[in-house]
Amino acid sequence: MAKGAIITLLTDFGLADHYVAAMKGVILGICPEARLVDISHEIKAFGIDDAAFTLGQAYPCFPKGTIHLVVVDPGVGSARRPLLAEADGHRFVGPDNGVLTIPMDRDPKCLVREITAERYFRQPVSNTFHGRDIFAPVAAHSAAGAGAAKFGRRISDAARLDFSAPVAAGSGRWSGKILRVDRYGNLVTNFDRETFGEIETERFEVRIGRRKVLRYAGSYTEAPAGLPAVVRGSGGYYEVSINQGDAARELQAKRGDTVELTLSAKRR
Amino acid sequence: MAKGAIITLLTDFGLADHYVAAMKGVILGICPEARLVDISHEIKAFGIDDAAFTLGQAYPCFPKGTIHLVVVDPGVGSARRPLLAEADGHRFVGPDNGVLTIPMDRDPKCLVREITAERYFRQPVSNTFHGRDIFAPVAAHSAAGAGAAKFGRRISDAARLDFSAPVAAGSGRWSGKILRVDRYGNLVTNFDRETFGEIETERFEVRIGRRKVLRYAGSYTEAPAGLPAVVRGSGGYYEVSINQGDAARELQAKRGDTVELTLSAKRR
Amino acid sequence: MAKGAIITLLTDFGLADHYVAAMKGVILGICPEARLVDISHEIKAFGIDDAAFTLGQAYPCFPKGTIHLVVVDPGVGSARRPLLAEADGHRFVGPDNGVLTIPMDRDPKCLVREITAERYFRQPVSNTFHGRDIFAPVAAHSAAGAGAAKFGRRISDAARLDFSAPVAAGSGRWSGKILRVDRYGNLVTNFDRETFGEIETERFEVRIGRRKVLRYAGSYTEAPAGLPAVVRGSGGYYEVSINQGDAARELQAKRGDTVELTLSAKRR
Repeated sequence: MAKGAIITLLTDFGLADHYVAAMKGVILGICPEARLVDISHEIKAFGIDDAAFTLGQAYPCFPKGTIHLVVVDPGVGSARRPLLAEADGHRFVGPDNGVLTIPMDRDPKCLVREITAERYFRQPVSNTFHGRDIFAPVAAHSAAGAGAAKFGRRISDAARLDFSAPVAAGSGRWSGKILRVDRYGNLVTNFDRETFGEIETERFEVRIGRRKVLRYAGSYTEAPAGLPAVVRGSGGYYEVSINQGDAARELQAKRGDTVELTLSAKRR
Repeated sequence: MAKGAIITLLTDFGLADHYVAAMKGVILGICPEARLVDISHEIKAFGIDDAAFTLGQAYPCFPKGTIHLVVVDPGVGSARRPLLAEADGHRFVGPDNGVLTIPMDRDPKCLVREITAERYFRQPVSNTFHGRDIFAPVAAHSAAGAGAAKFGRRISDAARLDFSAPVAAGSGRWSGKILRVDRYGNLVTNFDRETFGEIETERFEVRIGRRKVLRYAGSYTEAPAGLPAVVRGSGGYYEVSINQGDAARELQAKRGDTVELTLSAKRR
Repeated sequence: MAKGAIITLLTDFGLADHYVAAMKGVILGICPEARLVDISHEIKAFGIDDAAFTLGQAYPCFPKGTIHLVVVDPGVGSARRPLLAEADGHRFVGPDNGVLTIPMDRDPKCLVREITAERYFRQPVSNTFHGRDIFAPVAAHSAAGAGAAKFGRRISDAARLDFSAPVAAGSGRWSGKILRVDRYGNLVTNFDRETFGEIETERFEVRIGRRKVLRYAGSYTEAPAGLPAVVRGSGGYYEVSINQGDAARELQAKRGDTVELTLSAKRR
């Protein structure tokens, strides 16, 4: 297991400061064979649900056995617990604030532990940088072969975010929201293919603010240029996108905004 | 070949979203020994020629045998073909939209294939993220030892950009353009040393907008502070630079702007 | 030593251009086993003291033997010397402009050499990109096993920055400055725990501009939300921070601003 374990890093540290490198240095000091892969360090400062969403999109692309180090930790230095979770064949290390919600929700048999074994910490433990002093060394020791049980006892009350699925808002109507605006201005909604099926096979209306979107496009380039369309995104969620344009700017929409979906009575 | 192959990544994905990490996870699942190196993910969204230029500057610094994964792909999901090119001792994987122009142009014996072997794709193939589902796995299988011929048949009509060399505009005069404004505000032109020789050995005039630059500097620091000078850039192109200043801001110049060069009759 | 040596990279190149990748390609061509770790490439352009501070915070987290490649080099192409320093168990490669001040200051027995051995350079050496042509190949050859003495002769007059410790400004009063504003708006001062001790054990006043801070917090979250407090930072320096806020914005403070500390007479 130890040989060349992959450790991903997901933080809100940004790339200007030395914080990410400090964690990587600590990891390589403990587990020289670790292969480090950045997921993102541009999570909005303290953006727990942003990090949780990003983790949910990224981790399934990695091989089983990967260790995901998630440090978006507004509560650093407070009583919030550090966690090690085994879920969906992956391992996750991060604070008990909901950032690990998606893999925990996906795997009913997940095992979550409170990290208490101080012998694995970097000493002295700062009150302001648990990423460097607790989370990184724990991830590294886990990569180097320390069994999960060594880090602490199982718990069953880890914090979870309410990744609210869309809620019913009448017959054939649901109210959801924008989970993410990506670099291209695509609006990733929380309407997912698994729950809502192939909406393009029936009559649908997606409403964001005062804008209605009635068009479906099989890909970003299929719709007429400049007109918004609903596209099936690569992460399983429906997106509102504009071919050769920026849907967020055009629709004046942002993360968290309400998205309403109406489906024809045909199927539901 | 497989052991520790280098795969570079060049995209317009930015660093905030999970897209780059998704590709890396897919690669490491197929070729765990791959060594991943980012070239840039800050290419302007859909900036095909920006990516092509950046690739041309970066790839020759890597050892022969390196695989370069280039995903600037406004046509994702459309009929544009995915390509695998062998050129100049390197391999290149990317969409057929011109991003691979420079290595293909440099190597008249380059071999270009349309990637059609779906058995190497990540299934199901999304219509919105071929980087993850086609390009990354193909690069990884190539790194892991699959021969080029396995991916598809050779083609001879790959799209190429017109990296227009400067054009003659009279006796001893040429009209070129700014290829890139770098982080320091240096204006990289398309006048290259190979074609135009050592312009500092004769009388020259470079004009950008209404500003004339007559001074040559052997390095960024040789010219008087605050005054623009022509410098031989590290990538083979002449640049207009200001010692301790920002030439782009000072000359109000941007990518794509016209650059006129006049050379004394001495040599030409 | 060669097997898997770690090379860190710290520059002001930004992440949009190809410059960082060019250095990495050169390194991997010389030392394929090198493990590359970015410290930061978002140092302000030409920000020598910003880079020096960042290096000082990051390098101690890496294992002994790590090679740190620091290219913030406004004097590229001029007569400033390229240096190889052995200090504090680490190796450092960079220009002779003060970026290596902190490890040199920390280790009185440091050995510093002027790099003159052109056989290790990438040829031809550009006057505008010594990062690619001198510093990266030297770091790589060092990682691959070339002894320090091979690169040039020892010198004793390397440039050092004045990382001015705070200066006494009366009885129990000192005048210092803000070394860094981090991503969260925390104001890292140059008052360090080692010199000034546990200031929270006595009565203290920190003044930034017209704002007085009298509160101490054991962690970022301990102080009341929205009110500035002094926190012991993870890098050994006291910081002014606002729980759930941005101290830089709130106090209208920036890098370099003066910070005054007054301590009660109790201990001093």
